[in-house]
Amino acid sequence: MATIDLYEAMRTLRAVRRLRPDPIPEDVLYRVLEAATWAPSGGNRQAWRIIVVKDPARKQRLGELYKQVTLPYTKSYMERLADASEEERSRAERTIRASNYLAEHFGESPVLLVVCFNPEGLAVTDAKLDRLSVVGGGSIYPAVENLLLACRAEGLGCVLTTLLCMEEPEVRKLLGIPDPWGTAAVVPIGYPVLRGHGPISRRSVEELAFADAWGTPFSRE
Amino acid sequence: MATIDLYEAMRTLRAVRRLRPDPIPEDVLYRVLEAATWAPSGGNRQAWRIIVVKDPARKQRLGELYKQVTLPYTKSYMERLADASEEERSRAERTIRASNYLAEHFGESPVLLVVCFNPEGLAVTDAKLDRLSVVGGGSIYPAVENLLLACRAEGLGCVLTTLLCMEEPEVRKLLGIPDPWGTAAVVPIGYPVLRGHGPISRRSVEELAFADAWGTPFSRE
Repeated sequence: MATIDLYEAMRTLRAVRRLRPDPIPEDVLYRVLEAATWAPSGGNRQAWRIIVVKDPARKQRLGELYKQVTLPYTKSYMERLADASEEERSRAERTIRASNYLAEHFGESPVLLVVCFNPEGLAVTDAKLDRLSVVGGGSIYPAVENLLLACRAEGLGCVLTTLLCMEEPEVRKLLGIPDPWGTAAVVPIGYPVLRGHGPISRRSVEELAFADAWGTPFSRE
Repeated sequence: MATIDLYEAMRTLRAVRRLRPDPIPEDVLYRVLEAATWAPSGGNRQAWRIIVVKDPARKQRLGELYKQVTLPYTKSYMERLADASEEERSRAERTIRASNYLAEHFGESPVLLVVCFNPEGLAVTDAKLDRLSVVGGGSIYPAVENLLLACRAEGLGCVLTTLLCMEEPEVRKLLGIPDPWGTAAVVPIGYPVLRGHGPISRRSVEELAFADAWGTPFSRE
């Protein structure tokens, strides 16, 4: 079993988009899935399932669908960069190159983890609000984060993708996903082509936290 | 800094609902928040903020609101137990007792972490589907899971709650949360009254994973 300090795993968990097609040992894959099972969920109902796709034909089809939805998205992403700083643009261009690589090779990932969920098994406390509902995700994405962290521990590259939701009817047909289950993410995993996980670029606590009320700076006393 | 193995943290992260009012050292709280900042989000946009509520008056008001929304919820939870097995009912009753304790003492938690999000900063790829949207949560709850795991590492009890979304207009007014931001969770944290984190009860990989297509058992080869 891979051992890694919790904080070390978190602060070096990068989106790794260049994956080698080499197979993943069964016991490694099992530990990644088991990490997902440990996550909390509303009422401990665990209304999610993961389809572990290794079958080349199904992976190829998922790869075609992924490529199809990614290209327009990448374009709009590049358009938004028009008024970005040099540094931002340069970073974004690196991300785009990696995203394009992923789009070309998605179906060659050794494993695609398709995360499904049952809307009827979720307590959606924000369903009646006049805004986008997100709370259903509170019973799904903690499991996905566990899975990503486990990949980090095991030296597997991975990235959380949600673009295939735009082709959900096709994906459901391909994998036989029954009503009323939907798809929340597809995570390609595999050993990294390049250096894999490492330093990440994130905002600071001071930028993301407030003290007692919105807008009041949070800082260590 | 607290050190713990990643897998050990995950498999012992319980919902801890009985929290002592004792204060949390600033450096501990900072590490918990920093763990949240490390999480992935769509386009690395981190369209979430956390309000760290320690002010007694605001905590008390949040506690009143929490109690108000919890009681009917607990009742409906108990009604669903009518046809449960003896073992299930006994486990559920333990959870209900802990939930009632939390409802009575929510506002006495030393810190309430109110997780906010900006719907306009999320790429919601399932917005046009004819089902509940969850994908927005994919840019929020990985950060919440990191935060919970960090609490585990630091010996802090915690539990992911979403019931206060049902009183979101009140919560937004109380904390000055501006348009178009919403609330995704409130996590009370504090040192445990009882033994705190420990063994968890979850379904197995075999129950939650399929191989290649829905319904095909997944098992280690």
